[in-house]
Amino acid sequence: MSKVFDAAEVAKHNTPESCWVILYGKVYDVTDFLSEHPGGSRIILKLAGKDATEEYDPIHPPGILEENLKPEAFLGTVNAGTLPKVQAEPSSDAVEQQGTPPMEDLLNMDDIEQVATKNVSKKAWAYYYSASDDKITKHFNTEVYRSILLRPRVFVDCTKCDLDTTAVGHKLGMPIYVSPAAMARLGHPAGEAGIAEACRSFGAMQIISNNASMTPEQIVQDAAPDQVFGWQLYVQIDRKKSEAVLARINKLKAIKFIVLTLDAPVPGKREDDERGNAVGASAPVPSAAKAADKASASNINNGGGGVGRQLFAGTDPSLTWRETLPWLAKHTDRPIILKGLQSHEDAYIASLHTPQVKGIILSNHGGRALDTAPPAVHTLLEIRKYCPEVFDKLEVWADGGIRRGTDVVKALCLGARGVGIGRPALWGLGAGGVEGVKRTLQILADETKTCMRLLGVERVEDLGPQHINTRLVEQQIYDGPSGLDSIRGTFRARL
Amino acid sequence: MSKVFDAAEVAKHNTPESCWVILYGKVYDVTDFLSEHPGGSRIILKLAGKDATEEYDPIHPPGILEENLKPEAFLGTVNAGTLPKVQAEPSSDAVEQQGTPPMEDLLNMDDIEQVATKNVSKKAWAYYYSASDDKITKHFNTEVYRSILLRPRVFVDCTKCDLDTTAVGHKLGMPIYVSPAAMARLGHPAGEAGIAEACRSFGAMQIISNNASMTPEQIVQDAAPDQVFGWQLYVQIDRKKSEAVLARINKLKAIKFIVLTLDAPVPGKREDDERGNAVGASAPVPSAAKAADKASASNINNGGGGVGRQLFAGTDPSLTWRETLPWLAKHTDRPIILKGLQSHEDAYIASLHTPQVKGIILSNHGGRALDTAPPAVHTLLEIRKYCPEVFDKLEVWADGGIRRGTDVVKALCLGARGVGIGRPALWGLGAGGVEGVKRTLQILADETKTCMRLLGVERVEDLGPQHINTRLVEQQIYDGPSGLDSIRGTFRARL
Amino acid sequence: MSKVFDAAEVAKHNTPESCWVILYGKVYDVTDFLSEHPGGSRIILKLAGKDATEEYDPIHPPGILEENLKPEAFLGTVNAGTLPKVQAEPSSDAVEQQGTPPMEDLLNMDDIEQVATKNVSKKAWAYYYSASDDKITKHFNTEVYRSILLRPRVFVDCTKCDLDTTAVGHKLGMPIYVSPAAMARLGHPAGEAGIAEACRSFGAMQIISNNASMTPEQIVQDAAPDQVFGWQLYVQIDRKKSEAVLARINKLKAIKFIVLTLDAPVPGKREDDERGNAVGASAPVPSAAKAADKASASNINNGGGGVGRQLFAGTDPSLTWRETLPWLAKHTDRPIILKGLQSHEDAYIASLHTPQVKGIILSNHGGRALDTAPPAVHTLLEIRKYCPEVFDKLEVWADGGIRRGTDVVKALCLGARGVGIGRPALWGLGAGGVEGVKRTLQILADETKTCMRLLGVERVEDLGPQHINTRLVEQQIYDGPSGLDSIRGTFRARL
Amino acid sequence: MSKVFDAAEVAKHNTPESCWVILYGKVYDVTDFLSEHPGGSRIILKLAGKDATEEYDPIHPPGILEENLKPEAFLGTVNAGTLPKVQAEPSSDAVEQQGTPPMEDLLNMDDIEQVATKNVSKKAWAYYYSASDDKITKHFNTEVYRSILLRPRVFVDCTKCDLDTTAVGHKLGMPIYVSPAAMARLGHPAGEAGIAEACRSFGAMQIISNNASMTPEQIVQDAAPDQVFGWQLYVQIDRKKSEAVLARINKLKAIKFIVLTLDAPVPGKREDDERGNAVGASAPVPSAAKAADKASASNINNGGGGVGRQLFAGTDPSLTWRETLPWLAKHTDRPIILKGLQSHEDAYIASLHTPQVKGIILSNHGGRALDTAPPAVHTLLEIRKYCPEVFDKLEVWADGGIRRGTDVVKALCLGARGVGIGRPALWGLGAGGVEGVKRTLQILADETKTCMRLLGVERVEDLGPQHINTRLVEQQIYDGPSGLDSIRGTFRARL
Repeated sequence: MSKVFDAAEVAKHNTPESCWVILYGKVYDVTDFLSEHPGGSRIILKLAGKDATEEYDPIHPPGILEENLKPEAFLGTVNAGTLPKVQAEPSSDAVEQQGTPPMEDLLNMDDIEQVATKNVSKKAWAYYYSASDDKITKHFNTEVYRSILLRPRVFVDCTKCDLDTTAVGHKLGMPIYVSPAAMARLGHPAGEAGIAEACRSFGAMQIISNNASMTPEQIVQDAAPDQVFGWQLYVQIDRKKSEAVLARINKLKAIKFIVLTLDAPVPGKREDDERGNAVGASAPVPSAAKAADKASASNINNGGGGVGRQLFAGTDPSLTWRETLPWLAKHTDRPIILKGLQSHEDAYIASLHTPQVKGIILSNHGGRALDTAPPAVHTLLEIRKYCPEVFDKLEVWADGGIRRGTDVVKALCLGARGVGIGRPALWGLGAGGVEGVKRTLQILADETKTCMRLLGVERVEDLGPQHINTRLVEQQIYDGPSGLDSIRGTFRARL
Repeated sequence: MSKVFDAAEVAKHNTPESCWVILYGKVYDVTDFLSEHPGGSRIILKLAGKDATEEYDPIHPPGILEENLKPEAFLGTVNAGTLPKVQAEPSSDAVEQQGTPPMEDLLNMDDIEQVATKNVSKKAWAYYYSASDDKITKHFNTEVYRSILLRPRVFVDCTKCDLDTTAVGHKLGMPIYVSPAAMARLGHPAGEAGIAEACRSFGAMQIISNNASMTPEQIVQDAAPDQVFGWQLYVQIDRKKSEAVLARINKLKAIKFIVLTLDAPVPGKREDDERGNAVGASAPVPSAAKAADKASASNINNGGGGVGRQLFAGTDPSLTWRETLPWLAKHTDRPIILKGLQSHEDAYIASLHTPQVKGIILSNHGGRALDTAPPAVHTLLEIRKYCPEVFDKLEVWADGGIRRGTDVVKALCLGARGVGIGRPALWGLGAGGVEGVKRTLQILADETKTCMRLLGVERVEDLGPQHINTRLVEQQIYDGPSGLDSIRGTFRARL
Repeated sequence: MSKVFDAAEVAKHNTPESCWVILYGKVYDVTDFLSEHPGGSRIILKLAGKDATEEYDPIHPPGILEENLKPEAFLGTVNAGTLPKVQAEPSSDAVEQQGTPPMEDLLNMDDIEQVATKNVSKKAWAYYYSASDDKITKHFNTEVYRSILLRPRVFVDCTKCDLDTTAVGHKLGMPIYVSPAAMARLGHPAGEAGIAEACRSFGAMQIISNNASMTPEQIVQDAAPDQVFGWQLYVQIDRKKSEAVLARINKLKAIKFIVLTLDAPVPGKREDDERGNAVGASAPVPSAAKAADKASASNINNGGGGVGRQLFAGTDPSLTWRETLPWLAKHTDRPIILKGLQSHEDAYIASLHTPQVKGIILSNHGGRALDTAPPAVHTLLEIRKYCPEVFDKLEVWADGGIRRGTDVVKALCLGARGVGIGRPALWGLGAGGVEGVKRTLQILADETKTCMRLLGVERVEDLGPQHINTRLVEQQIYDGPSGLDSIRGTFRARL
Repeated sequence: MSKVFDAAEVAKHNTPESCWVILYGKVYDVTDFLSEHPGGSRIILKLAGKDATEEYDPIHPPGILEENLKPEAFLGTVNAGTLPKVQAEPSSDAVEQQGTPPMEDLLNMDDIEQVATKNVSKKAWAYYYSASDDKITKHFNTEVYRSILLRPRVFVDCTKCDLDTTAVGHKLGMPIYVSPAAMARLGHPAGEAGIAEACRSFGAMQIISNNASMTPEQIVQDAAPDQVFGWQLYVQIDRKKSEAVLARINKLKAIKFIVLTLDAPVPGKREDDERGNAVGASAPVPSAAKAADKASASNINNGGGGVGRQLFAGTDPSLTWRETLPWLAKHTDRPIILKGLQSHEDAYIASLHTPQVKGIILSNHGGRALDTAPPAVHTLLEIRKYCPEVFDKLEVWADGGIRRGTDVVKALCLGARGVGIGRPALWGLGAGGVEGVKRTLQILADETKTCMRLLGVERVEDLGPQHINTRLVEQQIYDGPSGLDSIRGTFRARL
């Protein structure tokens, strides 16, 4: 039988020399673990001697504690009656708030974001809402769709309209999927499994974040037989860890492909997140690199700061076409999708790496990596201009900025096979849990169908550039020298 | 002699199993009609057991009740003294409000809209004001005129200035007509007949909405001998209904042509209307299509939601050039005008369907169908660029966004024979009834003349592209591959 | 000795049948004059039976009373003690208000307009501030200068900088002149003579408005020997009146040229003016033309409405190159300048009318005639593009939107010989009388010199297109077919 | 032993005839000096008879008093007890205010400016913040960077990232330097030496302003052995003074080059500065040139007005390539950098003046000289378009508008060797003294590295135009005739 501690006794162990924390009613000595914590020691020390459950829970999947702590770190349990009563913050994590309107009253993505903003904690809001620097790319992601006009055709029978499509050979009920957005339980206890449940009822695909707040096993547990999941990989500096995860994923049949994220080899500067999640009052944003010491993988990621930086700990910034792809192919038998391409050159290079690479996702990480990076619409138009053959060799998906069914249709007209939504799914979860995500998907599906009908198009695969006027955007996309010639030289051996 | 009921007795019949309503002091059993109501059963059930006159009256033309209910549905009359007294809502439907300024004080369309907004009910405002999604197209319709510059010429005698013109061979006093805007009585009891009265004093043409809140007979009743009306047709799934209406229209000499609306085979998503006219608190916007069931004509239109969706019930989304035009030509001897064309391709196809088709109306339904659809100015410029011969074969009219006489002139310079106003006529009606519509037409006529004089142009037909600078807009219109080649292939037999 | 009336007796004569007014302490019977008043009878009737001096004085030059009334209209004098005491409106016409800051504290045109706005009456503000319709052209006049960039050159000796220039052969101290802005006494009792005094100290040219609130003789009375005035002509329907005025002008040596205004053959719709100066509560904006009656010269100008419409009464809309120019040349020996050209075609035609025509003023009437007309910068660029030879044949001046010395320089770089300021001079007068106008001219002169020095340019005539980057504007100017070919055909005889 | 005065006695000498001031506890008779004061006599007279130390100190470097006053001007000391107690203004010069957050909490340049705005005096704020006229160029300097998009590349090892670079052969730790911004002690007592201390810890270069509030000797006193300074020269009308200063600079080894400022031969019109620093209530902005007297070097600069105008006193506006460069080369052995070039023509001419001229700084003086002058980005693109060979002959640096690391990277991609920050360094100083400047540099360095990593670029010299999309800006840059042909003619002898 384990020992029982009073909270007051635990509270004494609040220094780097002796650091105890309470998690789920159990007391752990994490002194030795401080230096190993991927998110840095400071965030632990801030909670040293206290009950850290509320902070710990929504951003750590189950099992991670046991994986990382030695058995002897477990000291015993806490006497619950000795814990101080906490007064919840007024805008608390509790989602089922009074005053949340019925989901049916929410008519569009803005309505849903507004309700979610009221429902979720400041920390969750800051993590979801934030984007790099001045959020120029985040806003441009949406605005660029507004500057594309549609070209409706008349006198076309639009009785039938069908959103069915496929992804890497699997049937889907709609060309809208949920992007690998991290930390779903920050917004609602249903978490990523709740998103999975909502997707199930629409035949929608879901890509599970490498930083999901639930285990992949939990998320796919209730998958329908034909439900399609992808799994996102951030390759770790410690490759053994990544290999262990891949081995785990290989056992999950519901996961049909691996998404390797490439657009964030180092974390972007998300100031809302950093302000909203300051570890301590005196040091919210440690310099990413001291002037004195040259950058190295270990100190790039040595963040405190926001949730984003913490999640980033341990990620490997040294990935390359030559080394990483073969390594990955060796450790998985699933098709590989590359995420985060933002130039026609990289799309073209990817097309030289078939058959391992089956598809690419044009993405700027929701504007969260590099501010003033181009939206996926630009990259779609770049590929059409410089190397349209890419569309024949790879499935091209796109994400970022989708807020309306018309946005979905415009991306599809430009050659995307599907479009991902990140924040809208999280806001849906925050607004109403599983029902909120369903509402999000329902609205977008309805709007997409209405748009297709008014364009006079029955099936997703019939959408094409003749249905849109992209002239304004075409005047803005890259027009400089293409890097294709040099790329062809480099890769000639394989061509 | 009919039976007399107390209100309390009627009130008991407020379920789907037994549904009575009071209309104009009479009591009806509409239980059997619930499933047939084009606007859905929910809106009736909301009023079940109550006096529905106030809600029913402004959106149903006379006679529609008798047409749709069997004689035995009439149960008797209500004892008026037993009805509860209703307190009018502060911003009520009453138009002749205290504080409405004299019409002469209203200087422009904005003034008129502002007064109307105060005068009319929230429901009417929401229905008139609303447009699709983010109202991008609604705003762009007006903004695009602002970005066209005029080119005034000097030292031209501008003593005379004449707005006279013609439409399908009929003389008109001005090139401005009233578009088929539905539900005029929502804004003012004078309704569509009031608009007709105002048009009469200007020699202006009026197109009667398929969803007018008065019968066509009522509207044209006092027509001047040379007054010109058109009649708008939404083809119903039940073609017999449409044929019956056409037969009725064929008897009205004042109606000179049929306008077949093509830009809204399914209803756009007008969120203001849906919010402003929610049927019940718990379900304002039913999903347009459940994920489980595939779309079909019946459920596309199975709306609740706003006035727009209700009006839409029964409309046929399966119209085609091949089937619908010959059917229509068989059931009317009036010239046919096609409304809602938004691409040069469709304008060109229409020009292949003379002589049945006499004209086309470039329109995006006032921004109420598909958001980010192009304004009529774009389509005018597209036709000028790709297939200017269309102007020789068909009369081309345009609507959407007209708020100034300079806007009228710009559309005419680009080749439009006339321009339609929808909301401005309804706002005029709401602001001051017949006098308000007259004020609207007077302002636009005066502004148009002032503009023509300052351009040095005496007659409408002398306006041309040399009078305007459209350079900014030309840089925005569609520049992709034209669909004309394929169209010419398809229609070669007729060419 | 004249009869003395009590105010109460005068007050009885307040009908169209017997209409008396008090002016400068004298009583007049204006019953017979009602129908002849160029500004319409309504404005007189509004003041019938009352002391009209305050309304009459600032918009009528001296002598106009005697010119227009028969001697017997003078009935006698009023007993001043019987007049009601009037409480001045809080924001009154009094200019030397408490709180007006010293002129030296005003740093730019905005400061001056702000002070003037506080100082002057609402009527004066409305007349000066107003422009047509939505004031798009008024704002664009200024904005277009903001979109032109300067190209400073370095390592150029800029010790000396000289604003001297010439206009039709006369030396000027600066390339900035005062445009013919009407009704200066509305803003300050110093009136147009005050503007003349300010111009005198800078060697600046002044064009006297046809609707000046002082006589031309009064305005030029104290002219310096080398001071340069122009005189603006609105040709009257009654040509005898215009000929009489021209004869009077011919006697004034200080007036060096005649400016014939062409851009406002009919008045623009200035809504601020119309709202700010409503004649009566019930009818501020009479329709410019009733639908029933065809437009004719007499009813076009039959305005009530704002000061602008009243001033317009009697102006002839039938001017033409063929008739009007020869007539004018016959009645004056001064050079003729044509004002209000807004297209390269008209500039070119003007260049075919040398030597009578010596110059043209590119102007859109300060945005007060036709809204969305192009700014002078567009017309300058049009001429450079289509018919640059115009600059060799005529002096080209420009006005509209000048608010900074950099604006002045940009117009000069594009080929303007001088730039006119209208509102800034009136605001200067309103802000501080003669000193206010001097401050206006001083600020613009200083800014112009600073700009020239930083561009590395010493003299006005050395400014050229190489000093500016107009690329953005060039992408907006007219690019359609030029009317020059047809013009050359028409005028071939003279070429 | 010096005489001791009571404050009351000093106070009597407050006229042009007898003008005493108290500085640092000493009493001086400055009557004879009034006419010689470079900043004009008025500002001294305003303080006549008073303790002027607080106003004098932060804008005069030590020693300047002794240099300019004759020994007999020193009259004695003041009895400190007799001086009136002054109540500090609430927003005072004191920098270490309560409520200033820790520097680590400031995440970006905006945060730092905001804190500095609260900390510094109104005078300092006005001087730092101000720019010419409407601040169009100031804002455009930043906005133009926002309209350039980045082109991130993926699958590139970005473990290493290095900001090292060189300037005129000297090693630097980062490509960001501090521009010659004047009057640092206005913002914080640490002054320019504080900026030097901050630069030292980053290996950053600093260009010392000609108008520094500390002596060059003080500023470089603690320089690290490899620390790089430049020294900015405004050539004085009295060349002897400039030669004396150059002789002094020649003795300072830390100063590696001379920066000759060319973009402000006369002062721009900085209205915030003029409003914020009015000398007297009645005359804040003396006319730059009276209409009567022709401009000459002496009266151009005879300012009162803001700090900027005062600093400008004595500056020579007559510099030329032919005269000034050889004179300068004769008085210094350091490389010469020309600052303020804004056209490709001047950049090209500079490239003809090697080897004396080693580099150029593209600058519009932070928008403080000529409003609507182009940003450095335009000039970079102009050079690339018209005469790219300039980049091979000269080091090209750029300043103006840099607020983000992405801005730094974009300038480098376009060919800049380094970018200067002016206001950000002063705001940093105002926000937190030395630590504030360090925070400024740290943030920009971190952001720059993050940007380079996400572009997949390891070293500064590998950045190129392929990493950015400048299409929008390219559509705005000068496209007119180049002055190069005529320049080649002029300089043919040397080519």
